Amino acid sequence: MLDRLCVVLIRARNPSNIGAVARAMRDFGFRHLRIVNEYPVPFEAAKSAVGASAVIAEAASYSTVAEAVADCTLVVGTTAVGERQLHHPLLPLSAAAPRILAELARAPEASAPAPRVALLFGSEKTGLSNEELSHCNLLLTIPMHNPAGERHVSMNLGQAAAVCLYELVRELAAPATGIEERTTDNATSATAAQLERLTALLAEILDATEYGRRHAHNADPAHIRRLVRRIGADAIDAPVWMGIFKQILWKLGLPPRD
Amino acid sequence: MLDRLCVVLIRARNPSNIGAVARAMRDFGFRHLRIVNEYPVPFEAAKSAVGASAVIAEAASYSTVAEAVADCTLVVGTTAVGERQLHHPLLPLSAAAPRILAELARAPEASAPAPRVALLFGSEKTGLSNEELSHCNLLLTIPMHNPAGERHVSMNLGQAAAVCLYELVRELAAPATGIEERTTDNATSATAAQLERLTALLAEILDATEYGRRHAHNADPAHIRRLVRRIGADAIDAPVWMGIFKQILWKLGLPPRD
Repeated sequence: MLDRLCVVLIRARNPSNIGAVARAMRDFGFRHLRIVNEYPVPFEAAKSAVGASAVIAEAASYSTVAEAVADCTLVVGTTAVGERQLHHPLLPLSAAAPRILAELARAPEASAPAPRVALLFGSEKTGLSNEELSHCNLLLTIPMHNPAGERHVSMNLGQAAAVCLYELVRELAAPATGIEERTTDNATSATAAQLERLTALLAEILDATEYGRRHAHNADPAHIRRLVRRIGADAIDAPVWMGIFKQILWKLGLPPRD
Repeated sequence: MLDRLCVVLIRARNPSNIGAVARAMRDFGFRHLRIVNEYPVPFEAAKSAVGASAVIAEAASYSTVAEAVADCTLVVGTTAVGERQLHHPLLPLSAAAPRILAELARAPEASAPAPRVALLFGSEKTGLSNEELSHCNLLLTIPMHNPAGERHVSMNLGQAAAVCLYELVRELAAPATGIEERTTDNATSATAAQLERLTALLAEILDATEYGRRHAHNADPAHIRRLVRRIGADAIDAPVWMGIFKQILWKLGLPPRD
């Protein structure tokens, strides 16, 4: 499905930015990069970018925007807004993503062109021109912090592409990556018996070290029990703490009561 | 509220990457950049990065991770996972963001340290080391496309930072985020400095009781640090544990080093 999206870079000037866009595409599972440039230099130089080799190797060059998006059923322009006068629906990235994904997921009909989405990025300096924007069905913008009085600066091209592509796979990614959600909740909990044994050992330590004489409230049995429960020791940590507590008692000359 | 987050770059090598991170911070409204590096060169060179000037000008340098995160109540590490063996809860970015936002939104209590979150990024080449990860309460990863058979490559540092910071403000911008509801756990977190003090005291105890001689693996400094982080001590329990640990050392005839 992600194969149906192509990233289109228009008048990108800096080869390292083209390389960075290709790298973000590789990172998030996109393959089709299209370059619209009057001269071929930046494209050639970008081929050395780290981790972007496969995407760059398959990238296609076009001399006009019209050719680059000709086979696409949805053309989406990215813009930093600014003072540009827009004639298009403009959505924040998170609202545009479902529209793009819906088009990518649409079942192709026999007699109609296969769904294909173009995501356009303009030059680093000027973004997409009004002429280039006119090829789009939809515009999206990455919401940015623009304090009053500060000159408006658009995002770096490689970073903007990474953010857009991340948003597209954000919902898809979680199940597909195979990353286990390793949280403390998933760790095997210690048994109540283990925690109770820890509580008893800690009570002995507080007694042996005279901590209880100084801080009677903290040495109250219920307080110790809550303190031990709050450490949330799992089945792996509980025996470690038990070993530590026993060793302290041993060193204090008090073999733990068993 | 975004003022309570600091981005911490550890051993970043490439000045243009430091500049790119600072630019992403400016783009999304974050201000506090902290740099942990043995030598000052990359930091100095980054000051020329486009659009990053205010963030870079206010950036602070530290020589250790512990110092850089000392005033933080939640320390979050970023990792590309790979083959590293993790000892922490690991969440995909979209699941980690609400946890970070909840801490940022938590109302500070008069007697407790103000909530402050550190977001750690490791070096471009190696990411965060196990020792550096051991300072964290939580790890997050950006889900990436990793086809079988392809060498695992991590994201570009500037792009990874842009994606993480976008995800944080994305949640904020969304209507009815329900962030308030997520802060049901009202316990005030301990600061990283408190947890580091606990770690040092426990290390002294393990040394004094000869526990380390018997269980060398468990007495490894990074292991002790993780063990203490996992007890999830809050601002009320941390001083209690500190008192207990000091009392043990006192009873063993070893006044704690201060």
